[in-house]
Order: sequence, then C-alpha cells, then structure tokens
Amino acid sequence: MLDSKFSFELLAQDEKARLGKIYTSRGVIDTPAFMPVGTQGTVKGIFTDDILKTGTQIILGNTYHLLLRPGIEILNNFGGLHSFMNWQKPILTDSGGYQIMSLSKFNKIDLNLGAIFKSHLDGKKIILSPEKSIQIQKAINSDIVMVLDECPKQTSNKKILSEAINISTHWAKRCKIEFGNNNSKALFGITQGGLDKELRIESIDKLIEIGFDGYAMGGLAVGEKQSDMFQILNETTDLLPKNKPRYLMGVGTPSDILGAVNEGIDMFDCVMPTRSGRTGLAFTWEGKLNLKNSKYQKDNTPLDNKCRIKDLNKYSKSYLNHLIKADEMLASMLISLHNIYFYQQFMLKIRENINRGTFKNFYKKYINFFN
Amino acid sequence: MLDSKFSFELLAQDEKARLGKIYTSRGVIDTPAFMPVGTQGTVKGIFTDDILKTGTQIILGNTYHLLLRPGIEILNNFGGLHSFMNWQKPILTDSGGYQIMSLSKFNKIDLNLGAIFKSHLDGKKIILSPEKSIQIQKAINSDIVMVLDECPKQTSNKKILSEAINISTHWAKRCKIEFGNNNSKALFGITQGGLDKELRIESIDKLIEIGFDGYAMGGLAVGEKQSDMFQILNETTDLLPKNKPRYLMGVGTPSDILGAVNEGIDMFDCVMPTRSGRTGLAFTWEGKLNLKNSKYQKDNTPLDNKCRIKDLNKYSKSYLNHLIKADEMLASMLISLHNIYFYQQFMLKIRENINRGTFKNFYKKYINFFN
Repeated sequence: MLDSKFSFELLAQDEKARLGKIYTSRGVIDTPAFMPVGTQGTVKGIFTDDILKTGTQIILGNTYHLLLRPGIEILNNFGGLHSFMNWQKPILTDSGGYQIMSLSKFNKIDLNLGAIFKSHLDGKKIILSPEKSIQIQKAINSDIVMVLDECPKQTSNKKILSEAINISTHWAKRCKIEFGNNNSKALFGITQGGLDKELRIESIDKLIEIGFDGYAMGGLAVGEKQSDMFQILNETTDLLPKNKPRYLMGVGTPSDILGAVNEGIDMFDCVMPTRSGRTGLAFTWEGKLNLKNSKYQKDNTPLDNKCRIKDLNKYSKSYLNHLIKADEMLASMLISLHNIYFYQQFMLKIRENINRGTFKNFYKKYINFFN
Repeated sequence: MLDSKFSFELLAQDEKARLGKIYTSRGVIDTPAFMPVGTQGTVKGIFTDDILKTGTQIILGNTYHLLLRPGIEILNNFGGLHSFMNWQKPILTDSGGYQIMSLSKFNKIDLNLGAIFKSHLDGKKIILSPEKSIQIQKAINSDIVMVLDECPKQTSNKKILSEAINISTHWAKRCKIEFGNNNSKALFGITQGGLDKELRIESIDKLIEIGFDGYAMGGLAVGEKQSDMFQILNETTDLLPKNKPRYLMGVGTPSDILGAVNEGIDMFDCVMPTRSGRTGLAFTWEGKLNLKNSKYQKDNTPLDNKCRIKDLNKYSKSYLNHLIKADEMLASMLISLHNIYFYQQFMLKIRENINRGTFKNFYKKYINFFN
C-alpha cells in the first residue's frame, strides 16, 4: 500500500474511536498516532535512532523555531529537515502561528500581511504571511504541512473567536493556493472556535469547503478544563470528513489522548513526555511517578520490566532517583526515552483495543489513571 | 585466559611503550587503556550500553562522590556499583584523596585518623581513614582499588612532597592490611614525589617494598608543563616492576597519553572527552574541533565517516553547530559519545602500532596534533 501519494484509510471503528492508517511517501503512520515534538530539529534528549526504537512513526517540527534557527538557507542546503536531523520517517510541521502568539516579544496580526513579530532570540522583525509559512514548510520538506492560523489563547470570547475564524479561513485559502498540487505531501486545515459549538461548526464548514487532506482542532488545550475540551470534540468531530485524518494539536496527557480518541481524534502531539522526562516525572503502567521522591531511593525495580529497547528495563528507580538528585543528564535521557516509549505503547494498546472492539473497557480503566 | 584471578601480561614492547592485557573476573582490559570517568555512577551524557559500543573495557568511579551520594547503604543494597549503574565490566575506583583536596570545603590531614573534610554537598564532617577508603571501595565492589594517598597540588616544594610521601606510604601499608587477601580484585599503590626525581624514586621504592598489584603515578597533571611530566616519567617508570600495570592518574589529552605511553605507562583516566563534549569540543582525526565556531555552520561532513556505532557518522558538523547554539542536550550526548569513541580508537591505534613495532612513527605523527 506504500506509494508516493498521501492517503488515509479508516480500518475499524469502535463507537466513535477510529483505527486507521496514514500513507505517506516516507512511511505508514498507524492511527491513533502520537507525534513526539522535535522543536529545534531534535526530540529533546533522545538520539534519532532511539526514537525509531520507541515505535514512533512521525515527529513534529516547529516552523517558527526552525525559521529562526538554523534558518531556511541551511535547511535548503540539506534538502530539508529529514537529512539535517537524520530522521527519514515522516515529519509534520506546524505553521508557526501558535509559537508567534506564545513566544515572540511583540506580535500583530494583519489580515493581508500575515503575522508580524519579533524573534524571541534577537528581536529581529519578521513578517510571516500564509504564503511564507507554506514556503518555509516546503523548505523543511515537511510531509504534513499545516496552514497558518490565528490561534487565540482563550476559548469563549465570541468576538475574538469569530475574528480568529475569519482571519484563519482567509489565510487557509491562501495557504492552499501556495501549497498547490502535491500528491506526495499533505496540507491540513486548522479549525478554530474555542469551546463555542456554533463557531467551531462555522469554522469546520468553511475549511471543508476549501478542502484539505486532514483537519486539525486548533485553539484547544490552552488552559480550559479537560471535560470542556472533550465536550466540544463530542459535539463537532462528527462533522469532519470520515475519510480524512483528524488532529488535536498540542495534546496531551495519556488521559487527554484517551478521551479525545473516544471522540474520534486520530493524531496528537505534545512536549509532555520529554518535558516531564527532564523533571523526573515518568509515565508508567503503575501511574505517573515523581522519581525525585525519596520513596524511590531504595526501590530496585525498573520503570517497565517489559521494556525491550536499549537496556531501559535494567535501570532501577533507585538509580534514576540518584541521577536526578545528582543533576546528571542521564536522568533526562533515560526518563524522556522511557516516556516516549510509554506513550507509543499506550497508543498501541489503544489501537489494539479499537481493533478488538474493547476500546470502551480500556477507556474506563485508564481515563483517570494518570491524574 | 579469563579466570577470577587478577593478573597482568606484558605482550610486547616497542622501546619503552608496552602492549599488555589485564585479566579481571569481569573481563580483559587491553593496555594501554583509557578509562572513561563515571564520577557519580554515570559517564556523563552516555547510556551505559553505548559506552560498551565505544570499545571501553573499564570505567572509573569516584569514591568521594559515591560515598556522599548515593551512599554506601544503597550501593550495598545493589551489591555494588556494577548493578546499580548497570555496567558489568570492570570498575576502578580512586581512593577519594584527590577529590577531598580539590572539592571539599574544609580539609585536614591527620596521619593517624586520615583525611578529615566537610562534604561539598551539605557540609557534613567526614573522616576518611585509609581503612574506611578500602571498605567503601569494597562496598562499591570495585575491581581495581586504589590506596588512600595525600596528593599535593604542587610539584616542586621538597618539604611538602616529602611529607606527602611519608603520609601516603603509611596509609598505603594500612590500606594493604585492610584490603587483605583477595585474588579476584587488585590493590594499586600510588607514588608521589611531584617532579622531583629523588623523591619520586623514594616513593616508588617504598611502595614496591609493600608490594601492590599495580602502581599509579600520582600528583602529576596538576598544572605542570607537559614536558616536565614526560621528563619525570622518563626518569622513573623503569624503576616500576615490569610485570605490573602502570597507571597515570587523571591524564589527559590524546597528546598527554601518547607521550606517557612512550615512557611506559599502561593506564589512563580523564574527564576530558566528556567535559569537552559538553562544551562543543570534538577530538577527531582532523584535529581538535570547536564546533561552536560558525565556520561549521554549513559543513555537512560528519566528525568521523568511519564511525560505526549508533548512527554517529550521519550527523553533520552543521547539525552539531546548530544543536550547540540552540543549547540542545543532544549536542552534549553526540559529542561526548563521539569523543569517548575517538579516545578508544586512538588507544586501539596505539596498541596496534606497539604490536607492529611502529609506535615511534605514530608518536611523531600525533604528539603535537591536538594542541
């Protein structure tokens, strides 16, 4: 089934939860899928060949960060990010919109020009138009390209949400034109509308009218309650095309992912497994463990007996506790790798349960497990 | 030849340079050998299973650091450091003496009591007697145990050096008694005497009289000129027993190692490859490269085309330059691993050249190569 054309196949459904496959020219992605985040051309603290061993089939790169550093010229020299960072499987890039809002020192939205901002590194003024965002993602040689959107930080002010939809829709059209015809790559639209059902539906309808290879739910997981996020997904995912992948951006905890799969979402990305790894927090089948805690000081059991990548199953919690206290880099390396491995094992279990029609049991068992 | 008894075999000699094998119950060590430093139970920034892939046959642990953290109780729970850190090959431990001088906030030497110091972590007062140093190294389950010595920071004051010899000799005797009979482990003596030929010979004679499984040259590489260090080695290594390994502590650059092998030294340890790795400095067959330098920004060649561990040969200097600038942990991970691999390749070439009788050519080619 692997050819150069991007496509999505829905293999099974268990109530709303979907089992599928995304085909790209760089490999197949089993969905529901989790994408580790490689913001600056590296999934923090993990060797590229070790990422492969976790079962990861696609990673995410951040257009905003890569534009600032190493910059487009260097990425062009390498024919894109895959060769530069030595990752030959698929890469999805965000459009830069979200990071402009959250990281840059000064930013302004102009419907015609695009997002105007100052680099958080050197204060240099940059204008990111919808067209430029697509051009940069092409230089990155991204397999799944995201449209430039305006992503408001709050989820209920109708005026702000409505304006964000207008701008995002206008930019989405321009992105599609700039993207052009390219069957081997995909362009995803990003719906806005916060938690407002009416506005979210308006945004979905407008994007479907333009027509994309996949649809993301944007402007969620920005501080709202988990139950509110699940609610808006429950009310609106059915309106998305069944034959296209659905991506919930920036999500989340294993429980967030489980609840969103339950509402029909196929793709996720989040810094949580690696960021937690750097602070000594491990996601395991025993729950979420804070390995800094002195109760692990003499615990000679590993995080996961069954782990078969590298020799992770041989490192005890006691040793990890020691490494964290001694401020040793190896703590971040081991726990980040473990967490990515755990997330991918978690996704595998989700897919197995959808396939067997037992997803609801798995959902009930783990929906509150990691809180 | 592998049995539980510690022994050393001298296989070949090229002028003063020696090719040998150390046999331990945990594996063979080809000499001249380089021991990566695992101060706190981890070779900084490197997975234990990756250390193996570099060709490393023995690592060094620091008694002072391990005594303070994780502490003897936890090491005892694991039956020693090997299981705790998941490294099954040989470990050499220093005695703690050098770190007490260089790291602890307050220290005093008492001929009878030992080294009295305050922990650099919590200020707690600790007395490290020669007997206690050996007991701790036994708890670590070290394969090569070092005697507690007094290591002065300077290399020419006769009075200070002479006193250090007296104390160190007295302590060495007590260490030997405490070590007792244990054929499967080794106890090494440490000669003092700085750059003073007469005193160095006095120290060597006294230690040989006590009798050890190997002899270290202590109190060198503490700031003196490289040529002075080579000179004192030249004048004294011939006095050490031919059938015992000789260890130059805390050395050094590839050039330091080469010059010391030329004077008949068999073993080395140094933090240089990992510490340099964390600051973007790589040791390569092209020389010492500062990868922070912007001249590498567009250099798409790897550090070592021939490197066959992990996929290190696929990462370009341009990518490493980017990772360093972006303050990404992966830079330290990649360059530290590369440097340890390079050091072990360098030792391999030294051994091959001694074996072929071409050591002098290799020496001439590289003695000034890394300056």
